[in-house]
Amino acid sequence: MSETIEADVVIVGAGPVGLFAVFELGLLDVRCHLIDILDKPGGQCAELYPEKPIYDIPAFPIITGDGLTENLMAQIKPFDPTFHLGEQVNSIERLEDGSFRVTTDADKVFLTKVVVIAAGGGSFQPKRPPVPAIENFEGKSVFYSVRKMESFRDHDILIVGGGDSALDWTLNLQPIARSVTLMHRRDAFRAAPDSVNKMRALVDAGEMKLIFGQVTGLEGEDGQISHAVITDNDDQEHKLPTTRLLPFFGLTMKLGPIANWGLNLHENLIKVDTEKFQTSEPGIFSIGDINWYPGKLKLILSGFHEAALMAQAASRIVFPEKKILFQYTTSSTSLQKKLGVA
Amino acid sequence: MSETIEADVVIVGAGPVGLFAVFELGLLDVRCHLIDILDKPGGQCAELYPEKPIYDIPAFPIITGDGLTENLMAQIKPFDPTFHLGEQVNSIERLEDGSFRVTTDADKVFLTKVVVIAAGGGSFQPKRPPVPAIENFEGKSVFYSVRKMESFRDHDILIVGGGDSALDWTLNLQPIARSVTLMHRRDAFRAAPDSVNKMRALVDAGEMKLIFGQVTGLEGEDGQISHAVITDNDDQEHKLPTTRLLPFFGLTMKLGPIANWGLNLHENLIKVDTEKFQTSEPGIFSIGDINWYPGKLKLILSGFHEAALMAQAASRIVFPEKKILFQYTTSSTSLQKKLGVA
Repeated sequence: MSETIEADVVIVGAGPVGLFAVFELGLLDVRCHLIDILDKPGGQCAELYPEKPIYDIPAFPIITGDGLTENLMAQIKPFDPTFHLGEQVNSIERLEDGSFRVTTDADKVFLTKVVVIAAGGGSFQPKRPPVPAIENFEGKSVFYSVRKMESFRDHDILIVGGGDSALDWTLNLQPIARSVTLMHRRDAFRAAPDSVNKMRALVDAGEMKLIFGQVTGLEGEDGQISHAVITDNDDQEHKLPTTRLLPFFGLTMKLGPIANWGLNLHENLIKVDTEKFQTSEPGIFSIGDINWYPGKLKLILSGFHEAALMAQAASRIVFPEKKILFQYTTSSTSLQKKLGVA
Repeated sequence: MSETIEADVVIVGAGPVGLFAVFELGLLDVRCHLIDILDKPGGQCAELYPEKPIYDIPAFPIITGDGLTENLMAQIKPFDPTFHLGEQVNSIERLEDGSFRVTTDADKVFLTKVVVIAAGGGSFQPKRPPVPAIENFEGKSVFYSVRKMESFRDHDILIVGGGDSALDWTLNLQPIARSVTLMHRRDAFRAAPDSVNKMRALVDAGEMKLIFGQVTGLEGEDGQISHAVITDNDDQEHKLPTTRLLPFFGLTMKLGPIANWGLNLHENLIKVDTEKFQTSEPGIFSIGDINWYPGKLKLILSGFHEAALMAQAASRIVFPEKKILFQYTTSSTSLQKKLGVA
């Protein structure tokens, strides 16, 4: 059953540029919903380089991806946006009155006046392991993320990977699973040491298994796995009773469903003007790394500028009757009240 | 006698946008000279709101004009720009080889490949007090700033104003002057309390005079004042022997000589494209509040974006043979070496 949400602006992507759009729209009294496929705000900054320093954010000689995200979250706090995380936008359709119907893979439906695509490099998609015919089992017994833990209860779960996702889900699912096996190529993990220690303690206590090797085949019918075929590091094949497989091989970025939204593209990027950063569809804007115009540089600071100009145009669609006065936060008491500082 | 300086890029204006241009050009190996009419970097931020909070710089929920300037100065430190402060650019001429000759009112001549106009609201100009025929004395015995203290030695100096400039120059010139009189409309000062206290101590010690009223006339010949006509707050006229007058009535912003540089203007702003932020003259770029293009907002964050795109185009003029690789500070060791962090 789908949930319907009425909105003024839906922002697709909660990376730094999507977050700053909340600020610029907020100054113009526009409230935002943000949808992101990741389970936290920050986009690539949070996912790919949370602790890596960035040197080219203006007035920050150095800042990490996480630091940037935290500062932006503090800056937009007065405008209290609604986040819809771990969700992907599947479709955007125009309604008769010119507004939009946006649907997500979590069965949410947004009815919104404006859509802002701030999707960075596109959707983060899980990397598929090179297992023959794995696609026949995907979504039925092979999953790349855990939406509802309950659907894993009493299963024989095989988790593959050596990073935080693999370790975290091993620890989270172990109490409710019939059995849990963690498999990695070798005995070395890129995960929080505390999680690795907890996992090893469970192995020592006989409450789960840790094996080294690769999944090289899946057995089962109608999408339901019965056994995973494991090839160990001595090239020996084993069969492991498995009813749920969770491969955590990292994320890759793809344009994803955006390619099907009917927007004019330029080499897989969304073409926009440089006055409003509007796409070929009036009311759909695009800002940040995913857009293109002559001179475009994929810089976070450019996305900030694009967000500011987009906000002026978007607010005219949200409030067609209202006269918009361009004001400065430094001097406008009315803006300062919105920010909660006056 | 004029001093000639060979440059790759001359930036007119050392406000936040001019400063950030140094960073973006520096990443591309381009060294900059900055010229500003103010005596310190920071532009309007430093001059008009050094301690006033700004709320719309991305990832700073709050920052002062001074804080922003300090952060930008730290960020551009690795690129060691040369500042020419307290100077105004008088003219920009194109030379036969396509490069430019830039002259300042301090008799400097720059021979440069690229000019970047980042002059904000234009030039800060001192406000002229409403004294009949004052223009006949300007530059000869009436000055709006002190370039060389020595030229005030042994003069009868009348300083007019109640702010920091008036108080600071009263204290600085008193030791070398024949006499110093500070005049203000009333006995209330908008200056650092410590300076006001020091001034009052000099008055109490009989080493200078403090009077209240206005200058309503000037007497003298050939631009040399002999007496200032003072009207006090009881409407009585007095004559005060005066050979140097320093009015400090604040600054106003004017487009200034920029209007005469032959660039296409749009309502007193410089028209640029949105790909390179180049003016109607190839090789002359304009960024920040002083430029105009469809959608333009006078936001500091927009100037940052403009600086980044300008830098790509400007560096192609400075290094016509070099292949420019677009790189990220987060991942490029070569950029990190330039920043002194790798």
